[in-house]
This record gives sequence, C-alpha cells and structure tokens, in this order.
Amino acid sequence: MSLTEPIFKKLCIIGLGLIGSSIARAARLNDAVKEIAALDSSPQVLARVRELGLAEDASGDMRAALKDADLVILCTPVGAIGAVAKEIAPYLEHGAVLSDVGSVKGSVVAQVAPHVPQGVHFIPAHPLAGTEYSGPDAGFATLFHNRWCILTPPAGESDAVEAMAEFWKRLGAKVETMSSEHHDLALAVTSHLPHLIAFNIVGTADHLEQVAKQEVIKFSASGFRDFTRIAASDPTMWRDIFLNNKEAVLEMLSRFNGDLEKLRLMIEKDDGDGLFDLFTRTRAIRRGIVEQGQDTAAPDFGRTH
Amino acid sequence: MSLTEPIFKKLCIIGLGLIGSSIARAARLNDAVKEIAALDSSPQVLARVRELGLAEDASGDMRAALKDADLVILCTPVGAIGAVAKEIAPYLEHGAVLSDVGSVKGSVVAQVAPHVPQGVHFIPAHPLAGTEYSGPDAGFATLFHNRWCILTPPAGESDAVEAMAEFWKRLGAKVETMSSEHHDLALAVTSHLPHLIAFNIVGTADHLEQVAKQEVIKFSASGFRDFTRIAASDPTMWRDIFLNNKEAVLEMLSRFNGDLEKLRLMIEKDDGDGLFDLFTRTRAIRRGIVEQGQDTAAPDFGRTH
Repeated sequence: MSLTEPIFKKLCIIGLGLIGSSIARAARLNDAVKEIAALDSSPQVLARVRELGLAEDASGDMRAALKDADLVILCTPVGAIGAVAKEIAPYLEHGAVLSDVGSVKGSVVAQVAPHVPQGVHFIPAHPLAGTEYSGPDAGFATLFHNRWCILTPPAGESDAVEAMAEFWKRLGAKVETMSSEHHDLALAVTSHLPHLIAFNIVGTADHLEQVAKQEVIKFSASGFRDFTRIAASDPTMWRDIFLNNKEAVLEMLSRFNGDLEKLRLMIEKDDGDGLFDLFTRTRAIRRGIVEQGQDTAAPDFGRTH
Repeated sequence: MSLTEPIFKKLCIIGLGLIGSSIARAARLNDAVKEIAALDSSPQVLARVRELGLAEDASGDMRAALKDADLVILCTPVGAIGAVAKEIAPYLEHGAVLSDVGSVKGSVVAQVAPHVPQGVHFIPAHPLAGTEYSGPDAGFATLFHNRWCILTPPAGESDAVEAMAEFWKRLGAKVETMSSEHHDLALAVTSHLPHLIAFNIVGTADHLEQVAKQEVIKFSASGFRDFTRIAASDPTMWRDIFLNNKEAVLEMLSRFNGDLEKLRLMIEKDDGDGLFDLFTRTRAIRRGIVEQGQDTAAPDFGRTH
C-alpha cells in the first residue's frame, strides 16, 4: 500500500469530541481515507464540525453518513456505545470495518458485538492519546503521533485487523494487538488507577479547611500540579471508564491500598530504611521510561545531563 | 539596592546537590553575592564543584569557608541538618544570616535553632523548585525562576528577612512569608501527600504479576508517566521529609484515605452521578491553576485553544 493511497474509501466518525475530531483531522492530513462523514448526537457539535470543515458530510443524516462507509469508528463515551451500535447497525454496509476508541475493551465488546450484523468486521481499538480538553475544537492532527493504539480483535479477522493497523500507523500511531481482557488489566494499572488517585487527591485538597484553596493553587508546582492535569480529564469519559472496568480497577485499587497502608506504617514507625528502599526502587522505573523514549510529552526542564 | 550590587558579600553553601549547586550558579549569574564558598561531606562532590568552578573556595576547610561569610545556606538533607548546624556553629560570623532550603520547616527549626549562636540571624527558607535529578551536575541557574520561595522567620528579624527576600528575588524567585507550622501543613497537601501517593502507585505497579513491567513502561503515557516523574525524586530527601513532617502528612493521608474509600464505594455501587460530580469539581481546580499561570513548566501539547 503506497503512502498516499487511501486505506479506506469512506470513513464515518460517530462522536466528534477530542478523539473523533482528531481522527478526522489526522485522516485528512495523512490521506488515510478519501471521504469523511460525521455523526453526533449534538446538533451544536455537528454545526461546529461543518464550520471547521472536518467532514464532507456533517448533515446528521445517519443513513447518508453510513452509506458506502467501509470504516465506521465509534468515538462516543463508552457508556453510550451499545445504544449507538444498535442504532446504526441497520445502515452498516456489508464488508465494512466497525471500530471504536473506547478506553475499556471488555465492556465495549459486550455492548457492541451483539449488534454487529453478519459481514461487518468489528475490530475494537484504543488509541492511548488525549489531553485534558474536550470537544471538536480541542482535536488536532498530530494527537496520535508516536502514541500506542491497541487493537483487541476477535479471532479470524486478519484482513480487517491489517487494514486497521495500517490506518492507525498512517495517523502516526504505533500498533499493538492483545486480548480485551489483558487490555483492561494493563490499562487499569497504567491509566485507570492513576486517574482515580489523581481525581481523589485533587478532591481531598479541594475540601480542606486548614489550607486555603488559593494556597493549594499557588504552591501547586511542588507536586500537586501534575495531578491536577490528570484530574482535569473529561468527567463523562472517566465516569464510564470506572463503571465499565470496575473489576480490574477495584482489584488494582485494593493492591494500591494494601501498599499504602504499609507505607503509612513505615512513616508512623520511623522506618527510614524501608522508605529509602521503596523510593530507590520507584526511581529506577522512571529510568526505564526515559530510556524507552516514552517521555516525549513531558517538560524537559532540568535535563541538564 | 541596585540590581547589580551584591546583596551579601560572601555566601557559604553547605551541601552542593541539585539545590545547593543551583543556588551557586544563580547567585553568580545574578551577582547576588561577591564570593562563594562550598562545603560538602563528600570529597567527590567537592572535587566536582571545583571542576565546575561553582565556588571560589571548595577546599573543604570549614573554618576558611565560613570566615567572613555573611550568608550561610544549609542545603543538606533535612535528616542531617541538626548535626551540620552544630558542627558549623563555632565558626559562624557574628551578624551573619543562617538559612536553609529544607522542604519541612518545623523540624528544621527544632534541629537548628538550639545551635544558632547569639548574634546570628536564622531565617529558614524553602524554595519550591526541583527536578527528579540530584547532585552538583544537575543544578542550573534558572531553577528558581518564577518559583516560590517561602520564608518562615522568627519574630523580630526584619532586616535579615528583607535581605533574604532580596536574595531570593535576585535569583528569580517570588517570596512569601508564613509560620513554619502553616508551611508544613500547606506543603503536606501540595507536595508531600502527592509525592507519597506517587511513590506508592509506582511501587504497586512495580510488583504486579498480571501485567509485565515492560508493558507498564510501554503504556505509561496514558496517565502513569506523570507519577513516575514525581516518584523519581531523591530518596534521601523524601525519606527525611516524611519522617520530619510526619504529623501533617499522616493527617492528610488519613483524609485522602477517607475520600478514596468513598470513591471506591461509588464505583462498587455504580454511582455514576457521584463520580461525574467529583470529576467535574476536580476539573475546575485545574482551571484555577492554568489561569494563575502556575503551569509554566508543564507540557503544552494539546493547548489548541
């Protein structure tokens, strides 16, 4: 496949938020598709998509948008994805690839798979990319550059998987394939638990009476600030993630709590050696990340050697 | 005081790590002092200080280094600061200002104050700046630019306080004054608790058996990465912080735990509205920080509007 030949003819994006609108921009910029149609439950969002020129068709006509679409990507919140899949199912073209961008995969498969018509290839996907901003104006064409996109396909879909992998690589992403169960566990550790903790600590700081909120903001650079960026992520998306990956999240949280109690006891009992050993271990993990070049988006102040 | 006139004649820095060596570089660059002497318990560090040319005197002769020094800044780990203060006390010049950069203030005052000779002005300070790197090579002259430096002076030291405030402003910092008790509580929220949580979550991820460490590193950009930077901070420094601000840290941790249990129950009971409300509240705090311009060191990817 040449670098300029489109991978799909017509892409229909459903849900034009940060991710959906970034896919539109990136697919256009990189000639990944010939034509783009956009659907969204919000007339305001569709109007903005038309103003921004993100799609050839943003009229809101579902039948027209899905006609001849050989790739349909569900970019709605995970909590709404089953209902949307059911609604569009009658209009999906035979042979089309249906995909999504949901941050959990087991629940998406459970919600969507029952509605997928025979002859439509359902290839769940999760691009690990985002910012703390939402909506069609927040998207940008380079959002997926050098980011991972994880595919969790069912068995026996090698052609569709290959096409989806090509599509995401064309948008700048690196592609990995795994089971939806493994995805949900790996993301519970690397993403869902960190977000849960960040939401919690920012919430705790918000209702303290001893320290003024103004002061928390003022001195946030001393550590708190990194948490506030994470805790500023889209509330709807994160509500849905926690409700739809409950089991893995609660398991990771229980391990976190067990470890935190040990750490609390070390402080209480003045166990300086225990603290030092733990902090030395956690420091080493950072080196692995920096060495792997996974830190491209972080500030590079202080990188003096 | 003119912008080029030195604020102190001779600065003696004790402990040439990230902060101490950054003070040396910044004081030199901004003509804050005429002369710099360096002391460190490590001969290797002193040798490196000489190679880097960070001080006129890095011979290791304590008496010579402190002679005529009208400003002495203790930049050792908080756990060692009392012993160092006791050791240098006999050599401190009458009228000199003694300060420090410790991340906790109540414990520093308790450790240092008993050793301060009459006629020496002890003005505790805490510049809120740092990176995850350590040692004399990690320092840089702009580390304190636009950062807060908190002074927690005793009553009746207005001249020395004013000089220290001038000194830190000359190095690019913004200066705030408060009691050591309030400092320790405010920093427990904005810095110590976030670090504790980051150390813990990175530790939890490190000893999971279900998800390979390699994968945690690979997919760290999805949220985990921000924690790894915080959890890569200097182990000695953080051991000392938790042991020396135990009471405030344990109180904040207990609040954090109470909130986390509520959050866990929301997930367990599928309380989507509760989750959505919390996440909406935490998002608003971020806006306060961005509006106050406290986010200058954070990556600006995604700032598309």
